[in-house]
Amino acid sequence: MGYRTPMPRYALQVEYHGAPFAGWQRQADQPSVQGAIEAALAKLEPREHTIAAAGRTDAGVHGLAQVAHCDMEKDWDPFRLSEALNFQLKPAPVAITNCAKVADDWHARFSATERRYLFRILMRRAPATHQAGLVWQVKHDLDPEAMQAGADRLIGNHDFTTFRSSICQAASPQKTLDALRIEHIDTIGGPEIHFHVRARSFLHNQVRSFVGTLERVGAGTWSPDDVTAALEARDRAACGPVCPPQGLYLAGVTYPDAPFL
Amino acid sequence: MGYRTPMPRYALQVEYHGAPFAGWQRQADQPSVQGAIEAALAKLEPREHTIAAAGRTDAGVHGLAQVAHCDMEKDWDPFRLSEALNFQLKPAPVAITNCAKVADDWHARFSATERRYLFRILMRRAPATHQAGLVWQVKHDLDPEAMQAGADRLIGNHDFTTFRSSICQAASPQKTLDALRIEHIDTIGGPEIHFHVRARSFLHNQVRSFVGTLERVGAGTWSPDDVTAALEARDRAACGPVCPPQGLYLAGVTYPDAPFL
Repeated sequence: MGYRTPMPRYALQVEYHGAPFAGWQRQADQPSVQGAIEAALAKLEPREHTIAAAGRTDAGVHGLAQVAHCDMEKDWDPFRLSEALNFQLKPAPVAITNCAKVADDWHARFSATERRYLFRILMRRAPATHQAGLVWQVKHDLDPEAMQAGADRLIGNHDFTTFRSSICQAASPQKTLDALRIEHIDTIGGPEIHFHVRARSFLHNQVRSFVGTLERVGAGTWSPDDVTAALEARDRAACGPVCPPQGLYLAGVTYPDAPFL
Repeated sequence: MGYRTPMPRYALQVEYHGAPFAGWQRQADQPSVQGAIEAALAKLEPREHTIAAAGRTDAGVHGLAQVAHCDMEKDWDPFRLSEALNFQLKPAPVAITNCAKVADDWHARFSATERRYLFRILMRRAPATHQAGLVWQVKHDLDPEAMQAGADRLIGNHDFTTFRSSICQAASPQKTLDALRIEHIDTIGGPEIHFHVRARSFLHNQVRSFVGTLERVGAGTWSPDDVTAALEARDRAACGPVCPPQGLYLAGVTYPDAPFL
């Protein structure tokens, strides 16, 4: 025969709590989501595994529907693979919420055409209890209409140098922001502001730079015109304060051929 | 003057995560919510403090709007008292979400005319991540209409011996259940069943006995008639399986003169 049988490839939809991890990406000496999943895969097929993901989230950032892919030797039934991984992942707060067999050239990162992020701000004075670590808490009220007016200045194709961390490795700061929708909702723990952000791809810290800047607009310290001025400055120093990671969720990834039913 | 000035009394609305505590009630050798608040009070006014609460929740049960009262020597501004307590309570997941001065004979437990509980069931196969410890997770679907039909059999004044733990210290098993409403909602983490339960007072483990029994109805193992038969048996052995505590929240307490604005 002489031909090496290609290993079947599986897309994994992954949900995780960011708190115990140094981020998505595998690290030699710190827990990571990638490392946890690769260790679970090694329990199923003992060898080195390397998985790829649509977005490499930072320490403390959560996954709601991160997407990764893995290559297996055995021809696994996708549902059984997800069940076996969830069993091996316990008690880490990482869950495979969907699994599908995909083409050999399908790639969780390079095939993705859109990433969606959610950011949650909780507005109340008393410290969060049930939602601690899952929201960015501010003690003051925020004006969602002013924030939306500021957000509208960021939509479209721009040089986002202002909203890009100094360690960002993207080739270009030019990106297209498809949507940045701001929603005010009442939750069981108090009023929240949710940011729904969509783009083909993001610069490092772009969402947290947007949220930190728009929070200043919501608090009345910045005007929407200040957001335009910050964008046009193309200068990292013009950005508002970058907000903390624990309110950020990778909420979904779009592919031309949706892998999951 | 000869008269002892009465100590001003304050009603406290309390939110807490039940996981790190052995329950509401102070214990010699284990962390409790009552003990955490009393320790915080002792930082403000150094002496022994004893607070009373509307409902003594079990280990793992959460507070959304538990109500307690405390007596202070100093005439505190209620908002400043809540802020000072929240500062002292950190990093315990306990927060004073409201505070009001009340009459000297107002009592968090004995003045209450109604308690409200919420119970959350999460229905999905993959382990919960963000909501772990905040829901009871079941891996199968539940039929909310069947559960409501079963719940309707429990409304009203009954001998609830079947739904009372063997260590319950209430004088009588006769109670009036005012409401048991079942809601099916989609959350970010998956579909949930919420139980909204109201009564003047409850027997020990009554809500968890209701939920465990009605879960069997939702799964199709029990019929609503089986609920009636269990109730009429007036026998603890006739109860369905008592469900775990981590989906249960003391959601609110009603007083004739609402203490909070």
